[in-house]
Amino acid sequence: MSLPLSRRNFLQTAGAGGITMWIPKQAHAAEESVIGMSKWDLDTPALCVDLDKLERNIATMRKKLAATGIASRPHAKTHKCPAIARLQLAGGSIGVCTAKVSEAEALFAGGIEPILMTTANVTPNKIRRAMKIRKANRQFIQAVDYPQNARDLSDAAKEAGVVADVVVDVAVGTRSGVPPDERALALAQLVDKLPNLKLRGMISYDGGAQHIKGFRKRLDESLKRYEPSMQTFEAMKRSGLNTEIFSGGGTGTYNIMTKVPGFTDLQVGSYIFMDCQYLEIGGEDNEQQYTDFEPSLTVMSTVLNAYFPKRLTTDAGAKALTLNKPGPIVIGENGFTYNAGSDEFGAIQYETANKEYKVGDRLELIVPHCDPAVNEYDQICGTRQDRVEVVWPISARGHSQ
Amino acid sequence: MSLPLSRRNFLQTAGAGGITMWIPKQAHAAEESVIGMSKWDLDTPALCVDLDKLERNIATMRKKLAATGIASRPHAKTHKCPAIARLQLAGGSIGVCTAKVSEAEALFAGGIEPILMTTANVTPNKIRRAMKIRKANRQFIQAVDYPQNARDLSDAAKEAGVVADVVVDVAVGTRSGVPPDERALALAQLVDKLPNLKLRGMISYDGGAQHIKGFRKRLDESLKRYEPSMQTFEAMKRSGLNTEIFSGGGTGTYNIMTKVPGFTDLQVGSYIFMDCQYLEIGGEDNEQQYTDFEPSLTVMSTVLNAYFPKRLTTDAGAKALTLNKPGPIVIGENGFTYNAGSDEFGAIQYETANKEYKVGDRLELIVPHCDPAVNEYDQICGTRQDRVEVVWPISARGHSQ
Repeated sequence: MSLPLSRRNFLQTAGAGGITMWIPKQAHAAEESVIGMSKWDLDTPALCVDLDKLERNIATMRKKLAATGIASRPHAKTHKCPAIARLQLAGGSIGVCTAKVSEAEALFAGGIEPILMTTANVTPNKIRRAMKIRKANRQFIQAVDYPQNARDLSDAAKEAGVVADVVVDVAVGTRSGVPPDERALALAQLVDKLPNLKLRGMISYDGGAQHIKGFRKRLDESLKRYEPSMQTFEAMKRSGLNTEIFSGGGTGTYNIMTKVPGFTDLQVGSYIFMDCQYLEIGGEDNEQQYTDFEPSLTVMSTVLNAYFPKRLTTDAGAKALTLNKPGPIVIGENGFTYNAGSDEFGAIQYETANKEYKVGDRLELIVPHCDPAVNEYDQICGTRQDRVEVVWPISARGHSQ
Repeated sequence: MSLPLSRRNFLQTAGAGGITMWIPKQAHAAEESVIGMSKWDLDTPALCVDLDKLERNIATMRKKLAATGIASRPHAKTHKCPAIARLQLAGGSIGVCTAKVSEAEALFAGGIEPILMTTANVTPNKIRRAMKIRKANRQFIQAVDYPQNARDLSDAAKEAGVVADVVVDVAVGTRSGVPPDERALALAQLVDKLPNLKLRGMISYDGGAQHIKGFRKRLDESLKRYEPSMQTFEAMKRSGLNTEIFSGGGTGTYNIMTKVPGFTDLQVGSYIFMDCQYLEIGGEDNEQQYTDFEPSLTVMSTVLNAYFPKRLTTDAGAKALTLNKPGPIVIGENGFTYNAGSDEFGAIQYETANKEYKVGDRLELIVPHCDPAVNEYDQICGTRQDRVEVVWPISARGHSQ
């Protein structure tokens, strides 16, 4: 039998036997020197988060969920940052989710223990990586959506000397998960029987529902689309299986999933940052704009060219903002159309501007879609009243494995 | 007066005085352990380059340019990798370009000296960073497109105790550069007169021309669009200014710019890797597909879900491939439509497939657009006959500053 490894031991042994491994980011001393600077003086493009807004978003989620009996288990794929995960846990979240095993490795190495990995590991090496985390971290839970994968996980858990915690991933739509029918129930029963797995319940996430525009439409459609998942949950429950976890939902449906019987926790991600895509879906109280949470995440950029009438070129293109639509919002300007289609440059067109812009001027941008934008940066500057208070490494940046 | 710094000294002193600084990537020992593995066994998503194809692309460019008298100065924004820059220099290139000062820092730290930075540094701190490179590296050349910026550069060069090499960036279109009229000539004359700058010539790049479909159309349009740049070059020459550099062009126009009088070198980038966007522009000999260079860059991915008819889900979505269009090509399949629109998952739809795919199967993908795809990864596996021969850190990944 083997003793559980501590996080320190995990870090020390992580290299052994692994074929590819998480590469720790080295926090450079010079990073610290931006602390105290105005965000308007940072070299750009620079990723920033307004700490007051971030904290308010975390507090708002806690407050809104308080009366519902439903918890939050935020998706760390949004921020990829152990420091922000710690804020979420301190703010009442019961754990975090990750999409990839390499994200789970980075978060655990950063001190985060309650991790639910929402994607199945289907290859032998990734299963080994997952079991290495599980061996060192009793709070690691992983998803499964195929019977053979469940058997492989049980075998690997046995080899690692653990009983691994597993949730069944139940599909909404056609992306990931086992279809929400008798196959889902059979898979849960199989997990329940396998010697080295412990069934913890199910997850079921509807990615397509999050950005349905208009709250009423989003409410109706997402509950309708979730019907088969609810039936699967009921069938699992009736069969006497452990259903202590029934997790799903996101920032667009956080106040909708509360209507799902038996639902336990929300995999909200973007609520901490917000972005142009979420702003336009509309909320329960404000059909025009989704104002439940505040846009805290911005990219600072610099005007590089102002020679051409009604146009500005900036230093923030697709590598700084991604190609997601709608395009970035320039804070303080209503008539700007920002095209981030070029790799290295942003192209602004406008009819009217609130000031005359010249080369070197800074622009603050709300990003089109927070998750992939964060993934373009090695660090994020936490600001308060525009001053940099902290620089956090985005430890799981680029961890797409 | 100050002595020029060596690269070693540059690395040692880079932190002093800098506000934000290049963060060296730490090459993890475990990375080495994939060497010798089949690329089909790598944890995915994994960025790979076929070394035979890469080397042939470099040799092809050298061969095609040999009789023209025109050199290549490849754009390192494509690969962000000192090891590949070294191959290009060994393959006859006269230097490399970078788009950002942070890329220039990373390449110089990686041992690359002949660097031409094609974007102007317009803020005081970035100018300091550029001059720090110039002080340590006599082969560093930077672009300028505004008179005030030229004066700022000269002042900063004086403060750094150097005479800095500068090229005037002349606009094609409305993105970056000084308009190709009397303002361009006046700027070149100003640079020529400023005490701490040395005018080396001009650069003029037409980003929009590279992807015009059909060789004949691309030839006609790009030469027409380049007419004002040619006139600017002639005016500089007539004025007795140094025109030893007249640089521009790209992979789509490498065999077109050779017709521009006085043109000296090509800023080709994608030719080493190729991608879906370049494949479809058509070449001089093959109007259907651009086959002058071979697609060497691929992403290995894994099938995660095969429950749903005519659909497959993979582990390579927008964070692994970007949202660029056309979508990724699955090598070996003609009837697959690959949608990388989800952050974490790829969604394939098909009518017919050459085999029955199951969970865990690997797919090899040609990326939509090489530059931003490379920027999603910390390292690239160089393979030969499918075996990993080397793992190169992508040192300038995420260096958008």
